[in-house]
Amino acid sequence: MSGGVKEKSFVSTLVKNSYGKSQVRLSKINRSGKVPTWKEITVEIELAGPEFADCYYEGDNSKIVATDSMKNMVYVFGARNDLNSIEEYGLALAKHFLDHYKHVDEANVRISEDMWVPIAIDNGHHDTAFVKDRGDQRYTHIQMTSKATKITSGIDNLVVAKITGSEFTGYITDSYTTLKPTTDRIFGTKIEARWTWKGTNCDFNSAFSKARSLMLETFAGHHSLSAQQTLFAMGDAVLAAVSDIEEISLTLPNLHRLPFNLEPLGMENKNEIFVTTSEPHGVIKGTMVVRGF
Amino acid sequence: MSGGVKEKSFVSTLVKNSYGKSQVRLSKINRSGKVPTWKEITVEIELAGPEFADCYYEGDNSKIVATDSMKNMVYVFGARNDLNSIEEYGLALAKHFLDHYKHVDEANVRISEDMWVPIAIDNGHHDTAFVKDRGDQRYTHIQMTSKATKITSGIDNLVVAKITGSEFTGYITDSYTTLKPTTDRIFGTKIEARWTWKGTNCDFNSAFSKARSLMLETFAGHHSLSAQQTLFAMGDAVLAAVSDIEEISLTLPNLHRLPFNLEPLGMENKNEIFVTTSEPHGVIKGTMVVRGF
Amino acid sequence: MSGGVKEKSFVSTLVKNSYGKSQVRLSKINRSGKVPTWKEITVEIELAGPEFADCYYEGDNSKIVATDSMKNMVYVFGARNDLNSIEEYGLALAKHFLDHYKHVDEANVRISEDMWVPIAIDNGHHDTAFVKDRGDQRYTHIQMTSKATKITSGIDNLVVAKITGSEFTGYITDSYTTLKPTTDRIFGTKIEARWTWKGTNCDFNSAFSKARSLMLETFAGHHSLSAQQTLFAMGDAVLAAVSDIEEISLTLPNLHRLPFNLEPLGMENKNEIFVTTSEPHGVIKGTMVVRGF
Amino acid sequence: MSGGVKEKSFVSTLVKNSYGKSQVRLSKINRSGKVPTWKEITVEIELAGPEFADCYYEGDNSKIVATDSMKNMVYVFGARNDLNSIEEYGLALAKHFLDHYKHVDEANVRISEDMWVPIAIDNGHHDTAFVKDRGDQRYTHIQMTSKATKITSGIDNLVVAKITGSEFTGYITDSYTTLKPTTDRIFGTKIEARWTWKGTNCDFNSAFSKARSLMLETFAGHHSLSAQQTLFAMGDAVLAAVSDIEEISLTLPNLHRLPFNLEPLGMENKNEIFVTTSEPHGVIKGTMVVRGF
Repeated sequence: MSGGVKEKSFVSTLVKNSYGKSQVRLSKINRSGKVPTWKEITVEIELAGPEFADCYYEGDNSKIVATDSMKNMVYVFGARNDLNSIEEYGLALAKHFLDHYKHVDEANVRISEDMWVPIAIDNGHHDTAFVKDRGDQRYTHIQMTSKATKITSGIDNLVVAKITGSEFTGYITDSYTTLKPTTDRIFGTKIEARWTWKGTNCDFNSAFSKARSLMLETFAGHHSLSAQQTLFAMGDAVLAAVSDIEEISLTLPNLHRLPFNLEPLGMENKNEIFVTTSEPHGVIKGTMVVRGF
Repeated sequence: MSGGVKEKSFVSTLVKNSYGKSQVRLSKINRSGKVPTWKEITVEIELAGPEFADCYYEGDNSKIVATDSMKNMVYVFGARNDLNSIEEYGLALAKHFLDHYKHVDEANVRISEDMWVPIAIDNGHHDTAFVKDRGDQRYTHIQMTSKATKITSGIDNLVVAKITGSEFTGYITDSYTTLKPTTDRIFGTKIEARWTWKGTNCDFNSAFSKARSLMLETFAGHHSLSAQQTLFAMGDAVLAAVSDIEEISLTLPNLHRLPFNLEPLGMENKNEIFVTTSEPHGVIKGTMVVRGF
Repeated sequence: MSGGVKEKSFVSTLVKNSYGKSQVRLSKINRSGKVPTWKEITVEIELAGPEFADCYYEGDNSKIVATDSMKNMVYVFGARNDLNSIEEYGLALAKHFLDHYKHVDEANVRISEDMWVPIAIDNGHHDTAFVKDRGDQRYTHIQMTSKATKITSGIDNLVVAKITGSEFTGYITDSYTTLKPTTDRIFGTKIEARWTWKGTNCDFNSAFSKARSLMLETFAGHHSLSAQQTLFAMGDAVLAAVSDIEEISLTLPNLHRLPFNLEPLGMENKNEIFVTTSEPHGVIKGTMVVRGF
Repeated sequence: MSGGVKEKSFVSTLVKNSYGKSQVRLSKINRSGKVPTWKEITVEIELAGPEFADCYYEGDNSKIVATDSMKNMVYVFGARNDLNSIEEYGLALAKHFLDHYKHVDEANVRISEDMWVPIAIDNGHHDTAFVKDRGDQRYTHIQMTSKATKITSGIDNLVVAKITGSEFTGYITDSYTTLKPTTDRIFGTKIEARWTWKGTNCDFNSAFSKARSLMLETFAGHHSLSAQQTLFAMGDAVLAAVSDIEEISLTLPNLHRLPFNLEPLGMENKNEIFVTTSEPHGVIKGTMVVRGF
């Protein structure tokens, strides 16, 4: 099969396309202040549009921005932009693709940010040395066309557990049920949150911090009758307090700690000894908007 | 915050929900034939519907099928069903949820199957001993409501590379471009394919085998002017030959092997020495349907 | 080949053996105090001894403690022991194997502990809800025979980075050298530490905390002429301050952030823009003891 | 703490050191034959010796071969060496470090090779296109000093399972035992093998192929009374047939498939339905030499 074949020799039609660069990792030291500051992000660029079709049909690359060039732009804009927030940096980068390459229909920029914590020393912390004492990452996705811009931000891998204040009773019991109800179980999960912003000019950093704290506090304080109920309470707390956010989706895997049966071994398990498991696990999802929105 | 709060104390409304069980791993020996046969699959169940909302608002679990019971059903249906294909097993399982629990609006069953290969012995192979000499997994997703059933199947992690027959020239060169064009590069990728079936009663197994072979053969034989062009040729080959498939989407990361610069070390790199990289990597996507479909 | 063959039909002799159970995950709530406390650990048991040889030669299991029983013991001792430290729990578990099964020559218990942090609320923190705001794990290995007990403890996956105060100059330059010297680079690493204790009755918990803090503080404060020098300074700080530790080994991968070359793109990189990399990476190792020890 | 401190201000002495470069990934096309051939390997270099101590004590890098230069040598020797086997390439590379840098006491080269399989087409296979239809990797470790060279080679991640011909009975039953004996279980494992060669001039490639086949065939054909017995039979088969190998060590995790209890669900499990598990898992190890060796 030759690369030069004409479109007509195919049986099929391209109905959707996109391409880009993933896992572009940028580390930026900002030396403009008294002490240098630092960010580390991982960027994905994805472009789409009907003008790319000839590359699929005929290998015509004349409209193709090389993914290697996309990688270069991540670093060039890393130098040009002060990276105050991943949302602002991502907006600048997405806009560049639409401005600079008129045939691009849609530009997607997805960014994940590692959250470094200053190393504690004496009664304070070190300015320029960091430890990864945060398991979660901050995330944003800029989807931009000539007509609209949508920003979705969130959190990944925020691993939490509460060892009391979680029940699960009253569910359907039928011939497929073997689970025993419990009024005191461990509830462990790994929070994934995605929220959409009311505009493109929000206070992204403080909203992120507030959302993260509220989800943690609500998870900790909520007396949970089901993972679903806690999920809703967490999302509701964010929507109630962070006015820049218009919709929030949460995904909570239920990472079960199963009571270990000590009876065959001559002991009683007083709700103290559990098997930590990774699989299988429950998954609970929900999307909320402000009532009347 | 108490779990018994009434809906009215919330600011938000649940607009979307789902929950289920992930990573349920089933290993089945079928002992009905002369020699036992074997399958290993990983199943995910996800249910959705407005009737689950009270569980989110009030922690009312009376409509909840426990995810632990879902796990039980995976094994019960593993025993009841002969598991001829993951599609047939998945259809039976999805139908069960809609039949047995009338308040369930939508049932999703996602299955990944490990592909074991009989161990070679002498001039043949062993009947009941296997080696994982297949890196890829077979996949299906059954999405079922009372009104419609959609089956999407595919392949994950089919890792391939060709060391010649791949060019990349003629792309946009501007102030962001540093990549040099090449008429002979290594093209390595990890094929992810998803296709939708024309109905629910197809010959799933032979179509899968044919699709896999065709994608491999086309990748091998295609003279590639761009990863996009090869992607299209691969999808087109499947649509041309497998009539049960109506649409196919391919995702091909471009896992670059970069020429190592030997010049500063006093040698010439005659297109022989490359750095294998994982990141950053290109990603090429495309969706095709039969022309006129 | 039958399982009942006699030893004499083999050409080879077993010169070393061991077997056991890995990835036994225990979650324990201790309800003895005013508020419940919680630990999560992953345990590995490995037994060795000449009396196990017949199991290898002839499939004679009469001396075999099933690895499933080992798993049971992890949970039984989880219930019996207060798990004040993984070292004390591990010692009790290892001793059990030697006491209870006289034919066991050597028992190894390896334990990894996840480090959970209480969730912050208002001006304090929640007692019974936790977030994994610690990327590192605490580790211990108890190696016990009837004659001796050796405890090796440590830290895994303590990821750190400093953005200034790190140089690398003066190394060998010859025909294989292309690296440019630098007096100000990012130094990122993932600390793995292993230390041996002077006895079996140490204050394991406070020594661990002190060692962790000292390694972080030294990493932060040390002006580094090489990763080796910083490694030595970190180990030395621990040996100087924690008298229960007699030897310490550190492994520091050098997780490079490479300056991105902005020149071909018409900009200057003022030591601000870096490519975060995972591979290839340096690895620096060193073992220290107290001088004169 | 300054980098310029003198050794005497430390409390400790360096008793062991090493440093090097890991995860150097080389892809080589050999264009010397009629069709190009291809290898992909991942290399680790680790050097050790007392002359490196001043780098630890004082940050004196004058004896340091930069790990970046080590990386360069991997590619330079990739160009110079025909890479007929990873053992021959590794020997050349290790020798270079000892020859070129006289102060190096010991050079370790560890290499892992991905095993690509030609893509099948029509009645044959494609010469220059490959699929990763091999889950395992080939491994070697060259340890070289001026006095001795030791080569250890092996296999990683050879995942296998047999669905019959495996028993486990007759083990110790006491108050810690809950496992039921079985005369027909699934035996799944991931073979890790390491063997030492009788010299440095062996037929590495054919010995590797023979060892791999023999381990697979023996695993398939052996009637197993215990994982230990099968391990020994596998190692013995290699030692009996491959005269260049003088010692072999095998590590076999026992990746359990647990019978799922269908009884509470009103069905009988006729040894057909299993839960595939990853953790906890057994681990069986053994080292064998030729009798009388």
